[in-house]
Parts: sequence; C-alpha cells; structure tokens
Amino acid sequence: MSRASRVAFQGERGAFSEEAAVQLLGCNLAFSPRPRFEDVFRALAAREVDYAVVPIENTLAGSVHENYDHLLHFKLPIVAETKVRIVHNLIARPGTRFGDIKRAYSHPVALGQCLRFFEKHPEIKRETYYDTAGSVKMIMEEAPDGAAAIASAAAAEYYGAQIVKRSIEDDRQNFTRFFLLARKPPARRSGVKSWKTSIVFTTRNMPGALFRCLSAFALRDINLAKIESRPLRGKPWEYLFYLDFFGSVQEPRCRRALEHLSELVDLFQVLGCYPQGA
Amino acid sequence: MSRASRVAFQGERGAFSEEAAVQLLGCNLAFSPRPRFEDVFRALAAREVDYAVVPIENTLAGSVHENYDHLLHFKLPIVAETKVRIVHNLIARPGTRFGDIKRAYSHPVALGQCLRFFEKHPEIKRETYYDTAGSVKMIMEEAPDGAAAIASAAAAEYYGAQIVKRSIEDDRQNFTRFFLLARKPPARRSGVKSWKTSIVFTTRNMPGALFRCLSAFALRDINLAKIESRPLRGKPWEYLFYLDFFGSVQEPRCRRALEHLSELVDLFQVLGCYPQGA
Repeated sequence: MSRASRVAFQGERGAFSEEAAVQLLGCNLAFSPRPRFEDVFRALAAREVDYAVVPIENTLAGSVHENYDHLLHFKLPIVAETKVRIVHNLIARPGTRFGDIKRAYSHPVALGQCLRFFEKHPEIKRETYYDTAGSVKMIMEEAPDGAAAIASAAAAEYYGAQIVKRSIEDDRQNFTRFFLLARKPPARRSGVKSWKTSIVFTTRNMPGALFRCLSAFALRDINLAKIESRPLRGKPWEYLFYLDFFGSVQEPRCRRALEHLSELVDLFQVLGCYPQGA
Repeated sequence: MSRASRVAFQGERGAFSEEAAVQLLGCNLAFSPRPRFEDVFRALAAREVDYAVVPIENTLAGSVHENYDHLLHFKLPIVAETKVRIVHNLIARPGTRFGDIKRAYSHPVALGQCLRFFEKHPEIKRETYYDTAGSVKMIMEEAPDGAAAIASAAAAEYYGAQIVKRSIEDDRQNFTRFFLLARKPPARRSGVKSWKTSIVFTTRNMPGALFRCLSAFALRDINLAKIESRPLRGKPWEYLFYLDFFGSVQEPRCRRALEHLSELVDLFQVLGCYPQGA
C-alpha cells in the first residue's frame, strides 16, 4: 500500500473540507487540520503536507475572499476542484433526547443557514463557536449542560457523537466548491473530458477595459464560469479580477485567448488548470 | 433651526459610519445606532429614521457583501456616496501611559489592519471585540486592567477617552466607501457635475452573456467604476452582478445603455443614481 497523502485543511477533524479531500483524493489520507486558512497555504508551501484543500465559494454565502488573496500571494497551483453538498445536522452526546437540548453551538455561517429550525424551536438558543466540527469536539469533551452542535455527519462519527436531527439547513441548494492545491502542476493527464482554468488579472485604468479583457474569451466562444473582483492593495478603487473559464491552457484557442488578454492587462497569472468537478 | 435628520448606522456611537453621516448630511443629526446591518435597513424601511448610512467597500478588506444583498432585498434607493479615510488610534482611559497597556480590544478587521504595530509591540495582546467604537465604550465602562481599544478619534472624543497613539494602521491607503440611503430618490438636483449609478442584474445562462451586458456600456463609452458578483439563491453556480458606472439615468446615452441591458438580462434593478463622492 502506498504512503498516505498528507492533506492540510482549515478547521477541526470532521470539517466539510475533509469530505472534500476524500472526494478529491480517496481514503488513504493523513489529515493535517490547521487553525487558519493562511496556515493551510503555509503548510503546503513549507512541504509539511503534499496537498491543501480550501473552500472557494458557497452557493448561499458567496466567495471565500480571503482564499482568493492567498491564491495570488502563495502561487500554489490549483490541480482539481470538487463540490460538496452542505448538510447541517443537530448533533449531541449519545443518549441525549431532542427535548433535553437547550443550546446549539456552531460557526455563525452554519447557524445562519438553519434559521427556520431555530424559528420552529425557540427553546433552543443559538451559540456562536469558531468551527462547525470543533463544536462537536467541544460538546464531547466538555459536556456543557443541554448542549448540541451543528455540523457534518462526518464530525458526529469522528467524535463518537449522535445525530439527533438530520439535515436542519434552510436551503438544500447549499453547496461549497473546494480547490485542491499542490506545489506543482501535475504532469499531463489523459482521459479528462472537460477542463477549467482559473486566472487573475488587473485591467489598465481606461474606458471599456474589462469589456476588452472579456472579448479575448467571448470572441473565441470560451465560456466563463465565474468572475470575482477584489481590491488592489495600494491603488484605492482599482481591482483584481479572478476569472474561471471552461477550457484548458493546452487548447490552442484558450492559449490564444490568454495571449490576447496579456496584451490588455498589467498583472496576469494562471492560478491553475484542472478537470471540471462533478 | 430645522429638525435634526434621524440617521441609522451599524455599530456604537463614534463608529466610522457616524463620520460618513456627518460628511454626507452635516451636523444637525440625531444618530440611531443599530446592532446589525439588517436592523439599519429595517429601521429606514419602517420609517423609524430618515436616512441610513452603510459601508459598501473598503480598499483593503474589499466589499461588504452582506450590504449588497440588503440593497437588492430592501429596494431603498442610494442617494449619495462618500469615502472616509480609516485612521486607527490606540485609545485608553485618561491618564493611561503607553507602558501600562497590555491588551488592545477591537473588531477583528481593525486588529488585522494594525499588524505592524503589534509586531513592534509584542507586549500588547490582540483581543477581539464586536465593534471598534464599542471597544472604547467597554474600556471606559468596565475599566479592565491594562486595556486599550483601537478605534476612530471620534469614538475617543465621544466616550471621553484619550488617544495614546495616533494612526497605528499599517496602510494609509485605507478608505471605506459609504452609501446614504433614503426611502425615496430625491427630486432632481441641479449643479451636480458628475453622477454615478448603481444597478444589479442577472445574465442569461449563455456563452458571452456578461460580455454582451458590458457591451451596452462600453460601446457607448460609459465608464464602469466597479463590478461585483454575488451568488444567486436557488440557482447554484449562477450569479447576480452589481455594477457601478459613471453617468446618470437622466442622460440619454445612459438611459439607452440601460434599455439595451434590459434586453439581455433576466433580473434588472436600478439601486440608485447619486452625485459622485469626493
């Protein structure tokens, strides 16, 4: 059996990022949880792990902007993407009955995605915690009276806790997209049907600048998946654009589009070229 | 003397939003601080105040995405914009010497914008608090041992605290842009030189959709100031676009651009047309 791949992610064991890692890399993994996103990028750059898994956008909460900034700064290539359906469960210590629960701990984003559950059960108070899976760990270790956590089924299993109520999230169209990062782009992969490429650029400060940049793709029938703007440090009211398009840097029309784009921009960087995730 | 205008903003008295309100409306104001952004929008919609002031973007931290969502939902028109230079000061109870300070409380974004100060003074510990001005209020009321706050000069003055060290932020290119919201667009204003207009739209899901939308502006030489994408609820991996352009809905070329745009989009809404801020 081959050596387990070491994977860094943000949060505690049982985090949604761990589920993403298994989807991306299979089960032979050595997990390396880190407290902050920046630590995850640092761990990969410093060769403490082989891969990093980071969330980049959620269909309800939007982009994880901090990770866009880290992608630019650390220059660690995106080598794959995946999407995880976010299911929030009410989790407690084994033997707890629903009627015993007076408080539910979780990350504020998770609590904010279960508002209908809290409206129906005003007897259960929302309590903010720094991490979803971490809240399960806490209730198992500290056993506060009448406490539950809101987190993934994987977190319940990992910490030996019990799911009291499954899928309490308001909106089932709740998905998070994750990137797999490595230190180097992989060797040419065969058998991939559809590719995606992520880039970042700054436009020159002139009328129609973004329109011209998008023309490099539109006039070659290259489809955009996403565009995101971020402030450009040191230049107030100017922006970096992060763009995902369908296609590979190996395809001539995409290569030509990127050459065309590079004529129009100041800063330009390919963040990664990877198979389109399911 | 005319009745004071009632203005809602998020945070405690002495918040940067209060400075923005004075820039926008002058000094005859009755301030109505609210705990959350949503409460600020609600207060204006419910006629509890005459105006609301909300931050929309910071040149270092980026957009305040939550407020984009509220602009769409509440449909309260933007009637003006302004920019405030963010100066963070180390603030303590009167009589405190710099050497006495062991902890500095503030909002995590403010703490994160003073990293160099904390590197130079490792003896001062960072302590997270829910609000910048609120941290000044807290140290004045509760007087925790060796505590300081990081906030605006206005907060120091309002709570009778003392500025121990001025302007400790890392980057002086630190500005926040604020919107002034009312319940109705104002009557036609004269003497305004440059206008800005903010809109929101969704593109049809087809190749080159965003490029076509931007063509409505680029082909009429209308300059864009900002574009921001947000996830579209209920349609995973589709987006709303928030766009600011230079020009007024009163100008024929802008009116034609918006008519052209409305042919290309599903959802379309003008969020406001307002004089360009200094």
